[in-house]
Amino acid sequence: MRIAIIGSGAIGIHYGAHLARGGADVHFLIRGDLREVRQNGLYVRAKGGSLRVADVNCYNSTTEIGPCDLVIIAVKATSNGDLIDLIPPLLHDRTALLTLQNGLGNEEFLAEHFSVEHVLGGLCFICVTRISRTEIEAYDSGTLVMGEYGRNAGRRTDAIASQFATCGINCSVTDDLAFERWRKLVWNIPFNALSILAGGISTADILGNDGLRRATLALMDEVVDAANNCGHALDKAVAQQYIKHTEVVGAFKPSTLSDWEGRKPLELQAIWGEPLRRATAAGAKMPRLEIIYALLKSLEATREGQQSL
Amino acid sequence: MRIAIIGSGAIGIHYGAHLARGGADVHFLIRGDLREVRQNGLYVRAKGGSLRVADVNCYNSTTEIGPCDLVIIAVKATSNGDLIDLIPPLLHDRTALLTLQNGLGNEEFLAEHFSVEHVLGGLCFICVTRISRTEIEAYDSGTLVMGEYGRNAGRRTDAIASQFATCGINCSVTDDLAFERWRKLVWNIPFNALSILAGGISTADILGNDGLRRATLALMDEVVDAANNCGHALDKAVAQQYIKHTEVVGAFKPSTLSDWEGRKPLELQAIWGEPLRRATAAGAKMPRLEIIYALLKSLEATREGQQSL
Repeated sequence: MRIAIIGSGAIGIHYGAHLARGGADVHFLIRGDLREVRQNGLYVRAKGGSLRVADVNCYNSTTEIGPCDLVIIAVKATSNGDLIDLIPPLLHDRTALLTLQNGLGNEEFLAEHFSVEHVLGGLCFICVTRISRTEIEAYDSGTLVMGEYGRNAGRRTDAIASQFATCGINCSVTDDLAFERWRKLVWNIPFNALSILAGGISTADILGNDGLRRATLALMDEVVDAANNCGHALDKAVAQQYIKHTEVVGAFKPSTLSDWEGRKPLELQAIWGEPLRRATAAGAKMPRLEIIYALLKSLEATREGQQSL
Repeated sequence: MRIAIIGSGAIGIHYGAHLARGGADVHFLIRGDLREVRQNGLYVRAKGGSLRVADVNCYNSTTEIGPCDLVIIAVKATSNGDLIDLIPPLLHDRTALLTLQNGLGNEEFLAEHFSVEHVLGGLCFICVTRISRTEIEAYDSGTLVMGEYGRNAGRRTDAIASQFATCGINCSVTDDLAFERWRKLVWNIPFNALSILAGGISTADILGNDGLRRATLALMDEVVDAANNCGHALDKAVAQQYIKHTEVVGAFKPSTLSDWEGRKPLELQAIWGEPLRRATAAGAKMPRLEIIYALLKSLEATREGQQSL
């Protein structure tokens, strides 16, 4: 199985390194200077066992990589526009395009620009942070839930999951990708937003503050209700499960906070805007999401205004 | 009518200067260096006509001021503890203690520490900003609505209002101070919070941003509903009236944003915490207020943590 990794952030490096270390045929698109990656390899620092890939197949363009059986898409949703040119050289008739991006709208984007049969999605229930261009830290290697876009899982899905499992990636297959997307939003919508809005704080700081802990739970309830309105039978219990698990993992800085601190664009639409639109269209009320989305959007617009001065 | 002004922020200077300029017998408590005030006097810069007080009766202590007929209280609610020692030297049997502070709980504080008969409250529908220790800018001199705490207005209230009117202060008297407090919160709760949470922006920036404008209106609706739950028959129309008036006044930085930028404590309890508690006790749902209150509280706690390092 020839595999391309598009996106060299924490998620791309984490899964790419595991696959390469496990003997898979992995090819990384690395935009910019390749020397550092060639010299240092890739390093995943983790409590449960760190991992190094010494010889990294890395390229500046997808044309050099050529057709693959599996393309793992791990760029920020805000860079989706780049995929329109990056993907075509990687495609053959049965290429699987697996987006591991956050939020809603990414499978739809791929289906719109390429054939819908190519598209799969995966949810990374994982806590990883990029330390440098060649090193990431994994606080929780968690699990990857993967499914076909708008179809039941099938042979192809199982083959990919099996490749992942062989390489030590905890992986499961779902017949209901849309359900899993909403389930993950129950975590991302509150934690990714509040960590920024409360002035740059970790998950532990959020849960250690009474008001923010209540706000987190209330936002989680809103998302569960919205998911139900959208036809996904999510159970309220997921909120408490997430809180408990987040406490076990300990202080973690959500990816969006890292983006914010690095003055990178926020995945505003995928994580907050698109869920709000779909929920509203389905008749759900999301007053808390409305307000945090408006605040994040305005914070980013103000910052962009300042940057352009 | 011997008048003391306690608090030398924008509100204290604005009303004190108007009263002094209009010939009233006004005495300012100025904590810290008096030389600047003695040298420069006090200056109110305003489009409709600026105003200077050359000779300011100013003092470092309320003992030097002595008993007064009217004590105007214009310190931040976060400094209420100081009033316990500052007020007694100013009292005679019929001294009127008029709090012009924002939010809920200030009359209650005065009534608890002094006799309830002393207490009146006023709402400043006004846009003023302190420029320096001796100068303020008035964007909108608006109106002052004043009433007795827990009683109908009476002769004393009328006498104070008449003194204000003589000095050019647009003033009206109400029999329902609690209603007016909630009415003013319809403005303060959204604008004071969003200006901080959206990264330090003006009222015009808030209203110019679609999402924040909707958030403002939604918060206003929440406050109107809460007021109604608390027994104050506030009309929904107040929200649109405020929006319109705020647009007419133009870009203004709410006092709380100035406090935040000056690293001064926020009036968290008076403006957000106490209204939320009263509304919740009365059975109102305020999901938006809950979340902005939690965020502001956490922002301040984080900042205080940083300051104490």
